[in-house]
Amino acid sequence: PDKCVDLVTTSAREAKNFGKEDPRRIVHSFKVGLAITIVSLFYYFDFLYDGLGVSAMWAVITVVVVFEFSVGATFGRGINRAIATFIGGLLGVAAHRLASSTGNNAEPIVLGFSVFFITSIATFIRLFPKMKERHDYGCMIFILTFCLISVSGYRDSEVIEMAHTRLSTVMIGLSATGLICIFICPVWAGEDLHNLTAANIEKLGISLEAFQRKYFETTRNDKNQENKPPVDGYKVVISSKSKEESLVNFARWEPRHGKFKYRHPWDQYIKIAGHTRECAHRFYALYGYLHSEIPTPPIEISKKIEELCTTMSLECSHALKELAIVIKKMTRSPNSEAHLKNAEIAAKNLKLLVQSGLWPESDPLDVIPAAAVALLLIEIVCSTVKIADSVHRLSILSK
Amino acid sequence: PDKCVDLVTTSAREAKNFGKEDPRRIVHSFKVGLAITIVSLFYYFDFLYDGLGVSAMWAVITVVVVFEFSVGATFGRGINRAIATFIGGLLGVAAHRLASSTGNNAEPIVLGFSVFFITSIATFIRLFPKMKERHDYGCMIFILTFCLISVSGYRDSEVIEMAHTRLSTVMIGLSATGLICIFICPVWAGEDLHNLTAANIEKLGISLEAFQRKYFETTRNDKNQENKPPVDGYKVVISSKSKEESLVNFARWEPRHGKFKYRHPWDQYIKIAGHTRECAHRFYALYGYLHSEIPTPPIEISKKIEELCTTMSLECSHALKELAIVIKKMTRSPNSEAHLKNAEIAAKNLKLLVQSGLWPESDPLDVIPAAAVALLLIEIVCSTVKIADSVHRLSILSK
Repeated sequence: PDKCVDLVTTSAREAKNFGKEDPRRIVHSFKVGLAITIVSLFYYFDFLYDGLGVSAMWAVITVVVVFEFSVGATFGRGINRAIATFIGGLLGVAAHRLASSTGNNAEPIVLGFSVFFITSIATFIRLFPKMKERHDYGCMIFILTFCLISVSGYRDSEVIEMAHTRLSTVMIGLSATGLICIFICPVWAGEDLHNLTAANIEKLGISLEAFQRKYFETTRNDKNQENKPPVDGYKVVISSKSKEESLVNFARWEPRHGKFKYRHPWDQYIKIAGHTRECAHRFYALYGYLHSEIPTPPIEISKKIEELCTTMSLECSHALKELAIVIKKMTRSPNSEAHLKNAEIAAKNLKLLVQSGLWPESDPLDVIPAAAVALLLIEIVCSTVKIADSVHRLSILSK
Repeated sequence: PDKCVDLVTTSAREAKNFGKEDPRRIVHSFKVGLAITIVSLFYYFDFLYDGLGVSAMWAVITVVVVFEFSVGATFGRGINRAIATFIGGLLGVAAHRLASSTGNNAEPIVLGFSVFFITSIATFIRLFPKMKERHDYGCMIFILTFCLISVSGYRDSEVIEMAHTRLSTVMIGLSATGLICIFICPVWAGEDLHNLTAANIEKLGISLEAFQRKYFETTRNDKNQENKPPVDGYKVVISSKSKEESLVNFARWEPRHGKFKYRHPWDQYIKIAGHTRECAHRFYALYGYLHSEIPTPPIEISKKIEELCTTMSLECSHALKELAIVIKKMTRSPNSEAHLKNAEIAAKNLKLLVQSGLWPESDPLDVIPAAAVALLLIEIVCSTVKIADSVHRLSILSK
C-alpha cells in the first residue's frame, strides 16, 4: 500500500509540474470537457423525446476527435473532417445507387468491389508523405463515411437522409468545437511558432556565451561543473525540426489573430529555422572540442586568442539575443546590427592573428584544436549574419 | 484541359514510383480494402434481416481506424482500443447508474459534471509526452466510449446491453484486422527498425568514402559535381531519430517473428542509433570543411596527410559497411574488427604525423583546416569503435 501511495503522490506532483510548466494545458483540458459536456447534454435532452439516433452521437464523436491543442490544428482537422465527410457521403450515395440499380443478385458483388477498390485507393493515397502530413485524418474519415453510407442496406431515400443528418450533426459538433476553441483562451499555433523561433535563436546565444565561459575555464583547468543546464540548448534547436514543421502546417489554417495577418509569411519561419539549425550544427562541432579526447590547449596558447574569441563570442551572442527580441517584438533593432558589426570586426582580426602563425614552437596537437575553435567561431559569425538577414526579411514580409 | 491531363499523368507517374519504391505499400492498401470489404459485407448480409444497428458499424469503424502499416502499430492501436473501450464502458455504466439513482431532476446535473470532469482529466493526461507517444489513441477512445454510454439516456439494462454489443463488435473488427494484418504479407516494424539501423550505418560508410574522394579531389582543384547523391547520407541519419523511436515503440507490441524473439532487445537499437547519430554529427563538422568559406588547403599540404587519411577513411568506411552486414545477417564478422584495427593504427600514425609539425613554413590558415580534418577523422574512428561495440552487444543480447 505504501508503494501505491508513493506512486499516486509522485504522479500527482508530476502532473502539477506539467500543468504549471504551461498552464494552457489545464485550460485546454477544461475547454475540451466543456465542449463535450455541452454537446452531450444538448443531445441528452433531445433523446428524452426522440430516443438516441445513430446520427446524434456523431456530434459528440466529432468534438472528441477534432478538438486539438491549438486553433490551427483544430481547424485543420475540422476542415478535413467536413470536406471528407461531404465527399465520402457523395461517393457513398453514388455507389449505393449504382449497386441497387443492378438488381438484387448483383448488388452485394457490385458493392463489395466498389468498397474494395475505393478503400484500397484511399489507403494508398494516405501513405504519401505529403498527404500523411496534412490530410491523413481526412482520408480516414473519407473511407469511414463512404463505407457506412454505401453498405447501409437502406433504400435510396433513406440513404440520402442518413447522409444529410450525418453531415448536419458533424457540423453541429464542428461549430461547438470551433467557437469554444477560438473564443475561450485560444492557443495559436502561429504564436507558438513565432515564440519557438525566437527561443531557439536565444538558446544559441546562451549556448555561445556558455561555451566561451567553459572553454576558457577548462583550459585554465578549473573544471567546475555547475553551469551545465544552459549548455545543451543547441541540441534542442537541432531536434526541433519536426515540431516547427507541424506548427507551420497548423499555422496556415489559422485566421487573422493578434499581430498576425491571415497570410502571414509562415514559410519564412522555416527558412529562419533552417539557418538556425545550420548554426546549431556548428555548435555541435564546437562543443565537440570541449568533450573530445583531444586535450584542450594549455593556457599559454589559449591566452593569445582568448581576447578576440571572447569579444567575438560575446558580441555574436548579444546579437543572437537581440535578434530573438526583434522577432518577439516584431520591431527592428539597431543594437543587433551594431553587435554583429563588432563580431565581424573581431572575426577579421582573429583570422589575421591565426594567419600570422602565432605558435611556431608549440606542439601542433595543442595548437590545432585551439585554432580550429577559432575558425569555427568565425563560421558561427557567418551563420549569425545569415540568421539576421532572414529575420530582417521576415520583418519586411510581415508588414 | 491540357493542364488537367498533365496533372493526372504526373500524379499517376508519381504514384507508380511511390508504389515501386516499396511494393509493400500497394499490398497494404489491398489488405485494408479486403478487411473493410469482408467486415462490411458480413454486416450487409446481417442487415438484410435485422436492419442497421448502431453497434454494427463499430466493426467497420474499428477496421478503418486500427489498421496501420506495420503489425506492431496495428497491434498497439488495437490493444489500446480494446482496453480503452472496456474501461470507458465500465466507467460509463457506473456514471450512468450514479446519475439515474439520484432521481430525475438531479440526473442531468450529475451526468454533466461527471462528463465534464472525467473528459477534462483524460484530456489532460493525453497531453503528457509519454502518453501522447503510446496511448494517445487509447485516451481518445476512452473519452468517446465513456460519453456515448453515460449520456445515452437509456434505462440501466439497455445501457449494459449497449456496452456489451459495442465491446463485441469492436472485438470482431479487431480480430478481422489482426488476422489479415498478420497472415497476409505482414509488415514487421521490428524488421524495418533492424534494416533502418543497418542502412544508417552503411550510409555513414558510404558518406565517409565519398568525403575522402571529394576532399582530396577538391584540393586538387578539379571540382566535378557528379557524385552528389551519396554524400547526403549522413544528413538522413541525423534526421531519422523520430522514425527510429516510433519503430521501437511499434516493435515492442509485436509477437515473435522470423529471427526476432518476443523480448528482442529493442532498446539496444536506440543505443546503436545514438552512437550512429553522434558519428553523423561529426560528419556534419567534416563536411563543413568541404563547403566552408575557409579555402581548402593547397595540394602540397594535403598530399602529406593524404595517404594516412585515405587509409583511415577507407578502412573505417569498410568497417562501417561490414557492421551493417553484421546487423543485417545477425552474425559476427571478423572482417569488421580487422578493418577497425587498421583504421586505428592509421589514426595513431596520423596523430604522430600531425604532432611532428609538418608545415612550419606554410600559411597557418591553410594548414589548420587540413589538420582539423585529420583530427576529425581520428574522432570518427573513435565513434566507429563505439558503434562496433554496441552492435557487438546487440548480437550478444539477442542470442
